[in-house]
Amino acid sequence: MKLLEDRIREQGNVKEGNVLKVDSFLNHQCDVALFDAMGEEWARIFHDIRVDKILTIEASGIGIACCAARHFNNVPVVFAKKAQSINLDGDQYCTSIYSFTKQKEFPVIVAKKFLIPGEHVLIIDDFLANGNALNGLLSICEEAGVIVEGFGIAVEKGFQGGGDALRERGYRVESLANVRSMDPQTGDIEFGAPALPPAADSREDHTAAAQ
Amino acid sequence: MKLLEDRIREQGNVKEGNVLKVDSFLNHQCDVALFDAMGEEWARIFHDIRVDKILTIEASGIGIACCAARHFNNVPVVFAKKAQSINLDGDQYCTSIYSFTKQKEFPVIVAKKFLIPGEHVLIIDDFLANGNALNGLLSICEEAGVIVEGFGIAVEKGFQGGGDALRERGYRVESLANVRSMDPQTGDIEFGAPALPPAADSREDHTAAAQ
Repeated sequence: MKLLEDRIREQGNVKEGNVLKVDSFLNHQCDVALFDAMGEEWARIFHDIRVDKILTIEASGIGIACCAARHFNNVPVVFAKKAQSINLDGDQYCTSIYSFTKQKEFPVIVAKKFLIPGEHVLIIDDFLANGNALNGLLSICEEAGVIVEGFGIAVEKGFQGGGDALRERGYRVESLANVRSMDPQTGDIEFGAPALPPAADSREDHTAAAQ
Repeated sequence: MKLLEDRIREQGNVKEGNVLKVDSFLNHQCDVALFDAMGEEWARIFHDIRVDKILTIEASGIGIACCAARHFNNVPVVFAKKAQSINLDGDQYCTSIYSFTKQKEFPVIVAKKFLIPGEHVLIIDDFLANGNALNGLLSICEEAGVIVEGFGIAVEKGFQGGGDALRERGYRVESLANVRSMDPQTGDIEFGAPALPPAADSREDHTAAAQ
């Protein structure tokens, strides 16, 4: 999605340790007009699937998911909560997620009553790097018996492999910006999936040309 | 706001210890059509003030604030973050908030670059009880030199006094549902500010009738 890629190029900040800071518009200060456009784009991409509910995880996913839901007929948004709160029922799905950003493991819960077996769920989140958070949500979805129709991701750091691992398991992962490489020295960011190996035809052409 | 009061009566759950659970539509599962209506109502109420930015706090405030921002010309939403993350700049405002729900104190930060001195800020949150969280946001706003135009609250538990304390300090607090009392035994919930003492006229009438 060009709008998002342009914004990342303009305002994103590449730091050492594979960190891409986009806090001026995505996950600390939120540009809700951009969120709305992102929701519209996911609705276009996922027009052929049934979405009964959107699932995300606190905190950065919530604003994006809530703005997106408007484009999916205002389906309910459920956000997985970090850590236990005495305000929550005992009747909940729980899993544990390791955060590289925060360098610790934290429990994540969803009340069982908000994931109904057989429901079609779209998972939305701001970032996909190694996939830890999404795999945690996925394990909750498996336990709940809901059907995960796909993942709508704002920024995938493709070079960290989490997205492709999900795709290899057969999941549909649609990232609006897929960072192929980024350089903390120059600040350069390249988007797009890695170049595919040349197709059979072009290989033959290449061989012919080399002869 | 009748729509919200009705929903609280239908789906809210009164628990011991002044707990009102509204997690099926407000702060775990989110009804974004309701959030949209809430945003529209705040825009109506606060039509006479300037709003450059909406400030909220993770996690439950984010979805509500992002949906509301659409009704305030898509102004940026900034959410205060709980605890330190290595993903954040050192250049941040920090305060500490005691949560009765989680029974612990936690640090809250906002990057300095997202609160610009002189900006007009509307603070939005899902709950107002004793006012701890909002007072924390207020102290950050004071430090930042922004102008707090008011507070848009979804559910105020008026009997816990946090809202009136802010009003006494001269702040405009607009709660869409103000719980006057609630009973964990019966589940009854009463809305509205406490009844005022009878006006001079009606006191005279009363006296006359008694004579």
